[in-house]
Amino acid sequence: MTKKEAGSQRGARVTGKFSTQPYKGVRDFYPEDMAVQSYIFDVWSLTAESFGYERYDASVLEPAEIYKAKGAENEELVNEQTYTFEDRGDRLVTLRPEMTPTVARMIAGRQKSLSFPVRWYSIPNLFRYERSQKGRLREHWQLNCDLFGSDDISADVELIALAYQTLLNFGAEPEMFEIRLNSREEMSKYYEDFGIADEAIQNEITKLNDRFHKISADEYKEALSKLVKDKEATSKIYDLVAGNIKTDKNPVAKGLEELGITNVKIDRSIARGFDYYTGTIFEIFDVSSENNRALLGGGRYSNLTGLFADEAVSGIGFGMGDVTMRDFLETHNLLTSEITSPDLVIIPTSEEFNIKAQKLAQEIRPSGLSVSVDISTKKIGKKISAAGEQFVTYALILGEDEVNSEKYIVKNLGEKTEMTGTLPELLEKLT
Amino acid sequence: MTKKEAGSQRGARVTGKFSTQPYKGVRDFYPEDMAVQSYIFDVWSLTAESFGYERYDASVLEPAEIYKAKGAENEELVNEQTYTFEDRGDRLVTLRPEMTPTVARMIAGRQKSLSFPVRWYSIPNLFRYERSQKGRLREHWQLNCDLFGSDDISADVELIALAYQTLLNFGAEPEMFEIRLNSREEMSKYYEDFGIADEAIQNEITKLNDRFHKISADEYKEALSKLVKDKEATSKIYDLVAGNIKTDKNPVAKGLEELGITNVKIDRSIARGFDYYTGTIFEIFDVSSENNRALLGGGRYSNLTGLFADEAVSGIGFGMGDVTMRDFLETHNLLTSEITSPDLVIIPTSEEFNIKAQKLAQEIRPSGLSVSVDISTKKIGKKISAAGEQFVTYALILGEDEVNSEKYIVKNLGEKTEMTGTLPELLEKLT
Repeated sequence: MTKKEAGSQRGARVTGKFSTQPYKGVRDFYPEDMAVQSYIFDVWSLTAESFGYERYDASVLEPAEIYKAKGAENEELVNEQTYTFEDRGDRLVTLRPEMTPTVARMIAGRQKSLSFPVRWYSIPNLFRYERSQKGRLREHWQLNCDLFGSDDISADVELIALAYQTLLNFGAEPEMFEIRLNSREEMSKYYEDFGIADEAIQNEITKLNDRFHKISADEYKEALSKLVKDKEATSKIYDLVAGNIKTDKNPVAKGLEELGITNVKIDRSIARGFDYYTGTIFEIFDVSSENNRALLGGGRYSNLTGLFADEAVSGIGFGMGDVTMRDFLETHNLLTSEITSPDLVIIPTSEEFNIKAQKLAQEIRPSGLSVSVDISTKKIGKKISAAGEQFVTYALILGEDEVNSEKYIVKNLGEKTEMTGTLPELLEKLT
Repeated sequence: MTKKEAGSQRGARVTGKFSTQPYKGVRDFYPEDMAVQSYIFDVWSLTAESFGYERYDASVLEPAEIYKAKGAENEELVNEQTYTFEDRGDRLVTLRPEMTPTVARMIAGRQKSLSFPVRWYSIPNLFRYERSQKGRLREHWQLNCDLFGSDDISADVELIALAYQTLLNFGAEPEMFEIRLNSREEMSKYYEDFGIADEAIQNEITKLNDRFHKISADEYKEALSKLVKDKEATSKIYDLVAGNIKTDKNPVAKGLEELGITNVKIDRSIARGFDYYTGTIFEIFDVSSENNRALLGGGRYSNLTGLFADEAVSGIGFGMGDVTMRDFLETHNLLTSEITSPDLVIIPTSEEFNIKAQKLAQEIRPSGLSVSVDISTKKIGKKISAAGEQFVTYALILGEDEVNSEKYIVKNLGEKTEMTGTLPELLEKLT
């Protein structure tokens, strides 16, 4: 490796050795980060399963064609924003940038045998090839929940209630976030009322609305006037999207209210980028001033499987990312440090007792306690303090006396107490 | 997509639609397969954590250089057997084919701050670009466990005991498998005794031994005679590797015996491919006649982090694949079908009660039961039989009477019994 190459890795040590940094834009999960990640995944899983959702997954590798097919915009996305490469069999392969095409492929593959409605969830890692922007990650994980094969409004209510319950299960209060609701169908009716019946123009307005909060009111109005010539109509659209016209609660908002979910706002600026959405669209926003942004988004589609099968499958789904989730939990102090340490560490007084210690560990584990043996060459005092620093609960010193008498002393490192006894006596107290 | 392209996808439907098959050589995990996968990962995790191992992970994307550096053999492996491609920043990226270089990178990155010995585990997905061979997968998952920073023999014993306990925690009996032990160090001493002191030749013999069971005795002897000219030496090596010379139990086997682990055999033909192994090497074999093959393998290394840091870190580790694990469990009938169904399904008698049903589901979930609402447009009888077919335990019918009286009937679909009551009364009985 030349110095130049070494330097191309962020934070590389130029010592003739390779950099210990991960590939640009992806993360290493050392145990303390992995513990947080596992905690987030566990709450996601348990919540989805409590609603009767079944877990699925697929490979990160997908045929590139399934992303390219969705129109010119996606062609650009695939070419410029995904990891796509040719394999040695001349197949174009893409590292999945989103889960929807994969799940559409899988649903279409079993469309005849699945008993709809189908409730599925997954926690895939997704890849985007972003130009080096500070802090932008190229890989993240996302909870994806979908309910396929029902057009009933209660499906929309259920999906949003599931997203809401997920946040509550992390310890969040409803005051910490807001559910922002809109509907592509309702927006379409408004546009028609304003005299804009052309679907292509409606789609252009949707795309413009997606940028509503990123541009100034004047910029928005100017862009809008290029799409819609009628000045009265542009003014009505602006007032609608800006929230100057108060619109009625829709059936989804009413359904959520029946479930006691009231931190809901009809927000006509919610657009959601993907063109497959046809009905309800929603986002959940963090309302804290430090982290004011969308935590998740989703919507209803009328035909997700069109690329793969003739018969349409409608449904509703959402996606929620691990990075935004963690930011939300940290902003609201909902993340307690989750260090995974063994419950008990056996500390042999000399290495000649290391195997005996392994034997004792083996005898303790069936009780449900996790047990590790400190086989380092540190002195006993150092071993005990190391266990304390690693938040181990119990330490058991094993020396000649203990081996001969089969009586042991167990120290509770937090409470600074100790107990003595045979293994059965101690296990009764410890478990 | 042309017909030719469509045909290049296994089992593709030639209907103008895209194939619903996954990319060649990778698997889709529909819920019933995902349930098995999750069960395997859970047993792996719980066992590793019961031994005090902490979970870590990293991205599947790694700088290609960390695989190329390990010598000519690895250069070939990287070029021909991995997914390696150039990103738009001219970086060569590889989809990790094994976890060892990643974990070496991560350990080296924190070598100064980690408190050794370090016990880590991970369940990464790994990629191999295999030429289309029937049944050969290009992606699989693997439990990786390592104990870094101890040369004590009890570390070797612990790692093998952990592998052994993992199989027991799946319900396996020790009679179903065999631990085959060898040691690179001991082999080296034998070679020296036979007059072969040259390390390079010793390494060539190790590589040849790796193929011992794949070639005939004559082929082995012929290949050996090209490496070692002395006829007496070749004959001694053959007898050693073939097991014609009985060798003594080594300290690792004795340690395992102290732990009551006796399905252990010293097997001098165990070679393990990787060149970083320096001491103990081991494999666990399925002894059933239908699935007679290695379930896992591992070994001790004296310097894993050499590519990344000056100071050596020794340790011992093993890897165990999901595909071989599942084959083992199926061969020995240790896999009960693990269908994840909700505990209770609420069946509204008409769609007007769908939201009320969602509300009721929300009230039941805090009890710990997973609850789903059947919002399909099927008739009630069909809904009940569908729930039964999906192994749902309880069904609750919700119609006008139930909504008005707030008294519900819950059917136990397995036992074909039912109970009636208010929600609190029912929850008391159900949980």
